[in-house]
Amino acid sequence: MDFTTGSPGSDHHDARGVPAGGSIGTVNTTNVNTLLRSIENTGRDRRRGGYSRPVYSAAERDLREWFTAEASRRGLPVETDRNGILWAWWDLSGGTAETSAEPERRGALVTGSHLDSVPGGGAFDGPLGVASALAAVDLLQAREAAGSLVRNRALAVAVFPEEEGSRFGVACLGSRLLSGAIEPAKALALRDADGNRFADVARANGLDPELMGRDDAVLARIGDFVELHVEQGRGLNTEEFTDAAGRGPAVAVAGSVLGHGRWCFSITGQGNHAGTTLMADRSDPMVAAGQLIVAVRQTAAAQADARATVGRLEPVPGGTNVIASRVDLWLDVRHPDDAVTAALVEKIHGRAQRIAAMEGCTVRLTEESYSGTVHFDAALQRSLEQSVARTVPGAPVLATGAGHDAGVLAARVPAGMLFVRNPSGISHSPEEYVEDADAELGVTALADALQDLL
Amino acid sequence: MDFTTGSPGSDHHDARGVPAGGSIGTVNTTNVNTLLRSIENTGRDRRRGGYSRPVYSAAERDLREWFTAEASRRGLPVETDRNGILWAWWDLSGGTAETSAEPERRGALVTGSHLDSVPGGGAFDGPLGVASALAAVDLLQAREAAGSLVRNRALAVAVFPEEEGSRFGVACLGSRLLSGAIEPAKALALRDADGNRFADVARANGLDPELMGRDDAVLARIGDFVELHVEQGRGLNTEEFTDAAGRGPAVAVAGSVLGHGRWCFSITGQGNHAGTTLMADRSDPMVAAGQLIVAVRQTAAAQADARATVGRLEPVPGGTNVIASRVDLWLDVRHPDDAVTAALVEKIHGRAQRIAAMEGCTVRLTEESYSGTVHFDAALQRSLEQSVARTVPGAPVLATGAGHDAGVLAARVPAGMLFVRNPSGISHSPEEYVEDADAELGVTALADALQDLL
Repeated sequence: MDFTTGSPGSDHHDARGVPAGGSIGTVNTTNVNTLLRSIENTGRDRRRGGYSRPVYSAAERDLREWFTAEASRRGLPVETDRNGILWAWWDLSGGTAETSAEPERRGALVTGSHLDSVPGGGAFDGPLGVASALAAVDLLQAREAAGSLVRNRALAVAVFPEEEGSRFGVACLGSRLLSGAIEPAKALALRDADGNRFADVARANGLDPELMGRDDAVLARIGDFVELHVEQGRGLNTEEFTDAAGRGPAVAVAGSVLGHGRWCFSITGQGNHAGTTLMADRSDPMVAAGQLIVAVRQTAAAQADARATVGRLEPVPGGTNVIASRVDLWLDVRHPDDAVTAALVEKIHGRAQRIAAMEGCTVRLTEESYSGTVHFDAALQRSLEQSVARTVPGAPVLATGAGHDAGVLAARVPAGMLFVRNPSGISHSPEEYVEDADAELGVTALADALQDLL
Repeated sequence: MDFTTGSPGSDHHDARGVPAGGSIGTVNTTNVNTLLRSIENTGRDRRRGGYSRPVYSAAERDLREWFTAEASRRGLPVETDRNGILWAWWDLSGGTAETSAEPERRGALVTGSHLDSVPGGGAFDGPLGVASALAAVDLLQAREAAGSLVRNRALAVAVFPEEEGSRFGVACLGSRLLSGAIEPAKALALRDADGNRFADVARANGLDPELMGRDDAVLARIGDFVELHVEQGRGLNTEEFTDAAGRGPAVAVAGSVLGHGRWCFSITGQGNHAGTTLMADRSDPMVAAGQLIVAVRQTAAAQADARATVGRLEPVPGGTNVIASRVDLWLDVRHPDDAVTAALVEKIHGRAQRIAAMEGCTVRLTEESYSGTVHFDAALQRSLEQSVARTVPGAPVLATGAGHDAGVLAARVPAGMLFVRNPSGISHSPEEYVEDADAELGVTALADALQDLL
């Protein structure tokens, strides 16, 4: 590891969490980009491009250490809860919020995001929210030192593990465990592509699998949760919002998260030799899979506001000169109306069965995860809109097709989100991009929103 | 390793290669099945089923040690040539054929096959030919001891590495290197799925990459090459050949090997987020790949005697919630007429370009290997037909769609093949199967054929 954030002098804080030196304003305005650049070499994927930072990989563990060091530098001690979520506490009096003698308004205010990535992902999906949270703490600490901030409750920065689900197949695994949205037994039995059980990987990372699952004590400490995230579509660049130069506002407030789920289709045929088996004698699950992929596209394109994707496909055995015996492919479906999502999956399942039968194959469908459409807490959303408008006038409210820990936690605590503009709309790709100036406006908007809620 | 072949007494041979004890006849008739059972636990693949024995894996190395021990037990010293091919020599006088003082008729008679497998392959593809060669040596040694065999030249049993091409992508890599059918520089630069270069893997297995490639000295020692192999289609079970009980003859003689090749299509689109990217905004290479798989099936089905297969497909990055940025898929095409094979691939390439353009993707085609249709040496084929007919009257001559080292070597030395009946026609699958009685008839037919050529 070699993490470098700015000059030692400008980033140094004393034990009470108050920045030292007089260059606070300068540091704070560049801090989020400096923070992101300090991890730009961690977890690079030379084969796919971009970053591969699966949960509990060396890269993701390095990022957790980086987070712990950065939080400690700001006077925020970091603890790991039973589900592997990191919590950096900026309490009111020097102890943690739990042990504070001062009364709290209504639980702590929590911000944060995740550090894991999809395979070959971009630099911002996750880390932007964590770095912005740290940078917002800098701003708030400077304001408190200057006497312009009075806090009524503790603030915490949280980092959630396996938000992408790219290692164990279930997105937002950490927040699902915390909130009880997934049974611990089901989570612990998940396996990664190498066959490692989540229970064993968690244990190897210092967690006790027996203690994982819904944690009401931790939930009770969360008063409100606000997550900042890179926008993952072109929502801030639609004609409705852009100025004469074609530039959209830097920040949006989230209104809802599209319902989404993951399903696995297992198509079984007859494995055989590619050279000796006549075309007419074949039951080739790869041919059925090809037809199914086309059917998924057709079905989704015919349904307004639907998104359906096959991004992962694994033939067994996967040899060039072998007719596959089985093909597993994963389907990702999203739609604002949960009933429509269910109907889409049912329609695709029906087409899969007909396609498989025509090829002499069989098909098995497994639901791996499902989350209904989430509408964020209305009062919190209004507060965020008012705060953000001071820095970004005309910041719109957007629905998002991406899943987020904030969407999972919304079932248990008031939750909300801010999105930072994504010029191309590309995400989950090495080309994902955020402009420095937008990232800095995002930090100011987040700090303002947090201040108004503190 | 725990290889056990029969009782120590019955398998023991003295240093001159003459079996000890008087139970030769009994041992020999069961030997091939006993030999195969002694390796039935080596390289099992619990995930895919069957066997995964990629070249230079622990499993394949164990099988090479097993072969060396079995050959040595029969008095045949084993040497490894510059390309990693194993040669077990049964010379005329006690030294190797090269140092023998006796004149040789026309180079050595060589039999053998391979020990590597496709991923999740069967127990017979490769090992049947090697075990049958060892068992045939037993029969011939017994006949020589009984005075019923007089040899005029040396016999060798050869084991060829990477026949399947399942690790480095080029089938028959050992025989291609030996015969000069592949440039050493091209072979050495090949990489396996983990990124290991063939040159480095070869070096780690005791070979000198600098010395690999066409080896005229080794080729000059081969007078004729006869490979026994499990039939990989239903060629011996067609109505033309089966008896009233529906049972085909146990053995066939090969007439030709279908021309075949491997091509890789790389389809590049726009990687993006599966939830936030509208269906209309996508350039999804997986959708193009699905259409291409269907086009491959349609194109091959419309051409008599053609076989075309997509058995391997790899999306990049391969995440469930990620629109792939690239999909690589491999095409295997075979046809007796080389011009038709070329035209088929050109037709599929044209369809791939149109499909990719419709999806806003681009496509790149790479030929990984190609071998024209091989007609085996006519004189050797007639000799094999006459010898086999003594054990299996009515043994037919078959063309095969599978590639073999014998087909590669046929460009440089007289080569021929025997096929043993495959009741279901299934191969490259855990379900690949040979009946014990057919395997034993195969050994007798091979021994007779070798005796007539010695």
